[in-house]
Amino acid sequence: MQLFLNSVTSALHRGGMATGLLVGLATGLAFSVQADTSLETSAARMEGRIKALSQYGKNVDGGVDRVAYSDADISGHAYIMDEMKKLMLDVTTDTAGNIIGKRAGSDAALPPIMFGSHIDSVPGGGNYDGDVGVVGALEAVSMMVENDMKTRHPMEVIVFADEEGSMLGSLAVSGKFDPETLETKSHSGYSVSEGIDRIGGDHTRLGEAALTSPIHAFVELHIEQGGLLEEKGLNIGVVEGIVGIRWWRVTVHGMANHGGTTPMPGRRDALVAASKLITAINAKVTAMEGRQVATVGKIEAFPGAPNVIPGRVEFALEIRDLDGAKIQKVFEVVQAEAELIAVEMDVSFDFSEPFIDLHPAPTNMTLRKLIASSAEELGFSYQLMPSGAGHDSQNMATITPTGMIFVPSRGGISHSPDEYTAPLDMARGAHVLLQTLLKLNSYSFD
Amino acid sequence: MQLFLNSVTSALHRGGMATGLLVGLATGLAFSVQADTSLETSAARMEGRIKALSQYGKNVDGGVDRVAYSDADISGHAYIMDEMKKLMLDVTTDTAGNIIGKRAGSDAALPPIMFGSHIDSVPGGGNYDGDVGVVGALEAVSMMVENDMKTRHPMEVIVFADEEGSMLGSLAVSGKFDPETLETKSHSGYSVSEGIDRIGGDHTRLGEAALTSPIHAFVELHIEQGGLLEEKGLNIGVVEGIVGIRWWRVTVHGMANHGGTTPMPGRRDALVAASKLITAINAKVTAMEGRQVATVGKIEAFPGAPNVIPGRVEFALEIRDLDGAKIQKVFEVVQAEAELIAVEMDVSFDFSEPFIDLHPAPTNMTLRKLIASSAEELGFSYQLMPSGAGHDSQNMATITPTGMIFVPSRGGISHSPDEYTAPLDMARGAHVLLQTLLKLNSYSFD
Repeated sequence: MQLFLNSVTSALHRGGMATGLLVGLATGLAFSVQADTSLETSAARMEGRIKALSQYGKNVDGGVDRVAYSDADISGHAYIMDEMKKLMLDVTTDTAGNIIGKRAGSDAALPPIMFGSHIDSVPGGGNYDGDVGVVGALEAVSMMVENDMKTRHPMEVIVFADEEGSMLGSLAVSGKFDPETLETKSHSGYSVSEGIDRIGGDHTRLGEAALTSPIHAFVELHIEQGGLLEEKGLNIGVVEGIVGIRWWRVTVHGMANHGGTTPMPGRRDALVAASKLITAINAKVTAMEGRQVATVGKIEAFPGAPNVIPGRVEFALEIRDLDGAKIQKVFEVVQAEAELIAVEMDVSFDFSEPFIDLHPAPTNMTLRKLIASSAEELGFSYQLMPSGAGHDSQNMATITPTGMIFVPSRGGISHSPDEYTAPLDMARGAHVLLQTLLKLNSYSFD
Repeated sequence: MQLFLNSVTSALHRGGMATGLLVGLATGLAFSVQADTSLETSAARMEGRIKALSQYGKNVDGGVDRVAYSDADISGHAYIMDEMKKLMLDVTTDTAGNIIGKRAGSDAALPPIMFGSHIDSVPGGGNYDGDVGVVGALEAVSMMVENDMKTRHPMEVIVFADEEGSMLGSLAVSGKFDPETLETKSHSGYSVSEGIDRIGGDHTRLGEAALTSPIHAFVELHIEQGGLLEEKGLNIGVVEGIVGIRWWRVTVHGMANHGGTTPMPGRRDALVAASKLITAINAKVTAMEGRQVATVGKIEAFPGAPNVIPGRVEFALEIRDLDGAKIQKVFEVVQAEAELIAVEMDVSFDFSEPFIDLHPAPTNMTLRKLIASSAEELGFSYQLMPSGAGHDSQNMATITPTGMIFVPSRGGISHSPDEYTAPLDMARGAHVLLQTLLKLNSYSFD
């Protein structure tokens, strides 16, 4: 669906200057807004907010330990709520501890447009994962305020609780939170239910966080966490969806024997067999067309003595792809390789049922187009790409049209004090976010 | 050195009947003894003793948990001492807890000939490792008694304490026991020093166990613990020596990264690199001429999460061979393979200094000949071979001419309830042992 005037698009290509101009036609309403904020202004403002946020939970490595429900997380929430209030947002915390900052639209009957991310970190995390999305959402609102923009739809910034641990916030909002998780212990040392109450939620009324009235769409800005954009020199990733993830436990059965008295020929060494399969998995999955990934991250040999030929090896196999059928195909390639090695080495391989089985969450097709055309109008290079990591968007995608915008991660590094996104890259992301929101404001999914 | 009359040899090839006849010439003394005990008689007697011994520490799997210093070990010692006394041996326990059963020779001025093995097991062990050597030594004495043989040299059966744990007994006898070991905890739950006292030794006078007057020679009968003799249908292994053993810690340094967001090309996966090296080690060491073995029995990937590409892997590398230079050569082949993989995958490999470094312990050349000619005279097939496992003989070899006799292990299995040596195979070993002792009795190493 082509909604936008091409003449407007070309008029916007003005160097590093990002100016958003949208004329909404689809709904038949003449509705026009313009964000006249320079990229440099946004970059400076975003860098300031990132630096301010980085104080909460900062560690000696230059990163943060702002795990969900920790004191640092609570301080971070307070900072964000203050910033929201400065932008005249109507700030509330839902029963899951999600912060929601609302900006009224001109038509109160229209469903809100939501956008945001999270500010909790992994232990030993960095200052960009999640934070860029929240600071980008604040920047979009800042530009709206600065440019005195009015929208028809209400605009709602959301900061999801506990993304890195249990994805509590977005699961609760989308009505899918598993109550059994409440008693699990979070990295903060508190149980999830204690944690919810600590950040201003109410675990006894958690169900009330589920949205009952529709929202128009959800958009999340996030760092890529991979190295593709940087490698290709691109500004923006238009996320096609969040990959599906399956984990198997693979057990190799050989024969344990004395490492000194058993000659090399005829050994049924489970670790040599496992090594052959791990090597083959890497080679086969790399050689296949597509962007599927397979990882073996954990391995153990039994009995595990330096002088005993392993009789059994267990390892974890993870396969991710945007297409569930592709994951299955990759798995079948792995199984076929295992069968060859089993015959060659007189061992056997057992593959468990997947003990993690997350279905792919494609983003909304229209939202991909809105994000891509926003980038194009702003003169930013972009590419369609999957998200290899999980995000709150995958839960939001189950209840509303959802889109995701990626900005480059230096060196592809994330979940580390070394994660970094340059201020101008963050600003580009915020400008694309704003343009997308404005397009959504004029768009009807009917 | 050809000591024996070939005419005697050929006269002895009489089916399954094993009759030992020795005419000692080397020393210039006319000294002749003959053991006229059938293999069947020995087989039945040995099987009886193996079965009796198997009661001490027997477990539900059909094996034994007769770890050194345990109550079962103490009961086993008592049984052996009783059997020794029935054979009129003069039984003592030295300060290390070794049992020594002495049979006087005709010339009290001559140094004793020692032979024996151990009766302690690994946890979850079987009924043949060590036991066959002790029961074989008792059988040799039984034949001497039965045939009323007199020897010039004193004959001493020794049952070494704690072979499977610390090799305490033979280390103490050879004057090489490290006092630091005394405070380590044994599988019995007792410290080694407590254990020594429990089995009748005295850890405060451990040094007194070191032999101060020379012994003529030491011979150990033992199960092969490998599958070579069975596979080739041979009766006897003439042990060339106990292999040297070196252990290295190998560390692979790659780069940890997100298993979902990092594309397959360009990954610096330490586990894939380790897998390639482990596969290459197995292939290269198998393809080399010789009987060297290399084993990777223990491995760990870091950080060790299913969804994180391992940035570091550690594994243990063991190489064994009878020739120390060959071990070094194999290690250099491994290092060269690692260098190729390091370049290919942009990772690095660190090899620690060997943290176990046991030099090869060749057996005495004359003893190999005496054992081989004994087997030949008795009509038993045999082959020279290394011992891939460690034995008390490696310590005895440092103080006296030492020889080892192997008998077949079914399926090459040891350190398991499934280990088994057929009664006739045990009997053949005992007959070769007796013949070797009688040859030694007439031989001067001067």
